[in-house]
Amino acid sequence: MHLDPQSFRDINPGSRVLMGPGPSDVPTRILQAMSAPCIGHLDPYFLSVMDETQKLLRSLYQTENELTIPVSGTGSAGMEACFVNLVEPGDEVVVCVNGVFGTRMSDIVGRLGAKLIRLDFEWGKAVDPEAVRNTIQGKTPKLVAVVHAETSTGVCTPLEDLSKIAHDAGALFLVDSVTSLGGMEVAVDAWGIDAAYSGTQKCLSCPPGLSPISLSPAALEALDSRKAPVVSWYLDMSMVRNYWGGDRKYHHTAPINMVYGLREALRIVAEEGLEARFARHRLNHLALVAGVEAMGLSMLVAEKERLPMLNTVCIPDGADDPKVRGALLRQFGIEVGGGLGDLAGKVWRVGLMGNASSKRNVCLFLASLETVLKGQGVKVASGALEAAAEVYASE
Amino acid sequence: MHLDPQSFRDINPGSRVLMGPGPSDVPTRILQAMSAPCIGHLDPYFLSVMDETQKLLRSLYQTENELTIPVSGTGSAGMEACFVNLVEPGDEVVVCVNGVFGTRMSDIVGRLGAKLIRLDFEWGKAVDPEAVRNTIQGKTPKLVAVVHAETSTGVCTPLEDLSKIAHDAGALFLVDSVTSLGGMEVAVDAWGIDAAYSGTQKCLSCPPGLSPISLSPAALEALDSRKAPVVSWYLDMSMVRNYWGGDRKYHHTAPINMVYGLREALRIVAEEGLEARFARHRLNHLALVAGVEAMGLSMLVAEKERLPMLNTVCIPDGADDPKVRGALLRQFGIEVGGGLGDLAGKVWRVGLMGNASSKRNVCLFLASLETVLKGQGVKVASGALEAAAEVYASE
Repeated sequence: MHLDPQSFRDINPGSRVLMGPGPSDVPTRILQAMSAPCIGHLDPYFLSVMDETQKLLRSLYQTENELTIPVSGTGSAGMEACFVNLVEPGDEVVVCVNGVFGTRMSDIVGRLGAKLIRLDFEWGKAVDPEAVRNTIQGKTPKLVAVVHAETSTGVCTPLEDLSKIAHDAGALFLVDSVTSLGGMEVAVDAWGIDAAYSGTQKCLSCPPGLSPISLSPAALEALDSRKAPVVSWYLDMSMVRNYWGGDRKYHHTAPINMVYGLREALRIVAEEGLEARFARHRLNHLALVAGVEAMGLSMLVAEKERLPMLNTVCIPDGADDPKVRGALLRQFGIEVGGGLGDLAGKVWRVGLMGNASSKRNVCLFLASLETVLKGQGVKVASGALEAAAEVYASE
Repeated sequence: MHLDPQSFRDINPGSRVLMGPGPSDVPTRILQAMSAPCIGHLDPYFLSVMDETQKLLRSLYQTENELTIPVSGTGSAGMEACFVNLVEPGDEVVVCVNGVFGTRMSDIVGRLGAKLIRLDFEWGKAVDPEAVRNTIQGKTPKLVAVVHAETSTGVCTPLEDLSKIAHDAGALFLVDSVTSLGGMEVAVDAWGIDAAYSGTQKCLSCPPGLSPISLSPAALEALDSRKAPVVSWYLDMSMVRNYWGGDRKYHHTAPINMVYGLREALRIVAEEGLEARFARHRLNHLALVAGVEAMGLSMLVAEKERLPMLNTVCIPDGADDPKVRGALLRQFGIEVGGGLGDLAGKVWRVGLMGNASSKRNVCLFLASLETVLKGQGVKVASGALEAAAEVYASE
């Protein structure tokens, strides 16, 4: 058990170009905010930071929901928080699965002793609202859950029809917005979302560690009228809300410096403006796709179902997945993600999230990928950067 | 919902002297480490950071336990992680309660559908091993749980006898070391602790956000032989261990920059050395007590049951609790804690944790408290600093 303290060196990760499924590159402003002095979790200044963070978060989620706060854990803690507060043993819960994160939702629902109604869709395609409508006909689910932006496949599922179907069945509508929030619209109130959760390390470009959630008045009513206690003490929103709300009743110690960072990230979002931010994500996505297709590669997802912040590029014949990603990281410092589950070895997941959604990153990635593929003997066409430049010029 | 981004100013908490029940003052080295660039959670460099963090944590917990990792949440998440992984519905669980955090444990056990055997002890006194032995006679509890350092009262409960009693009954022994770890010995292996959890914001002087836990081989065996699934997906150690262990299988995104900070905090602990660190905590505690008693105030806890890092000072007659704490914060920048539960209005909780356990803080606190009390018309004797100086001189 003896240990030489001198054998541990100063932290020095070097720099990367984070173009995977998250985390994305964190702006210096956020890192600086996080390194401000830690103060008490009931200090008047920190209480004002909490208030401002909630205001900024409501603006981003486009909601008036009072309970709009960061859960003290990463995105998956937010997922668990939503289910654990709204689902009781025996409840019927519909989960739409078209990738890894829908699968994870199903796993959580099963652990809570609920009756899982799992609807599976092809990975790489959006959830089909008609299939959902048909399945829940005659049933009385407590909740219908869907992933807005499937990080494992790059697919966007539109939410408005599904929200109507859920509400028509008397169910709450729960949305995973981990990858969408901050990169495309997540209109909680206008779309009738009752519970949404997200992560900080995707399109907010903040380090991972917090999960912004928002619960509607209907969701809070479901929470207030529970028969069984919430199985998690840590995530029990009937107590957590008293700390973030008016009472300021101590529940658990908030991750002070992470909240500093999130507030700064949300301030950056507010300064850019939501429309401009979403347009930027869309433009860089279009330029990336143009470049990828100019190389002769293809996208996994059909054009109108593609996410702007997570691009799944099919691995071309003859390319060696780990070798290509390894070369991108070693030679060019670029991290992209591999495929998950059935898509392992079939796609690369190229993130353009938050701060990392930039013309610079699009061009660097296209040029690097072309160089790496050609260097490894994979035939690709030239002209990727020209195609991307054309997209930028057309705006 | 319109919001003016210019109305949010740069983060600027100012400086405090954090002498409450946590967080404690964070050294600049840790804040700097946390502001290093965020990289991917499967990046080879980050994997090496995880390995080093585990090594440093094992050394601090004085254990060979493989599963010694930071849980991705604050101290209460660590508490929940230990119970949720080891307790199944119907299990008999003994919880020793002598303050707020024992009460919290009982709350969690109840939510898990276990049979809670709650043993209450006077707040401000240690848990009595004989009472525990008598209660569990003839029972077959799965787990006996106790708080090592009760942050709500300032009481230390010795662990060795309780560990033996638990094991004699065939139970696992679970310990809350949130406030003790890093400020006094927590010898996991030597004392036969099967599950321990802690927080980063107490005697490690790192911002809150992670909870270091350690599970013994016997605890892992109990986890492996569960009949019911762990009710929490986020905290399910049968999966989390594959990410922190050899497989590196993705579970949830780790709070990268918080792990940088914890590693730096643990490096600082290793550089100081455990014995020197514990002796420093003890010396500053003795000096504080000498000063407080010289003023004519008294300590809540009997001498041999006092914690070195959390000092509960009885509020003297005539002193107005919120007014005194308010003046300490406003005039001298010092945060101390108020009493919780039955002790509200009766004690001040004065932390000397980690970086904040210093001669400077002891002297500043004693001088400030004397000034504030005299200023508010409370009679106190002079000579506090002289009494503290005498303790320092005797070392």
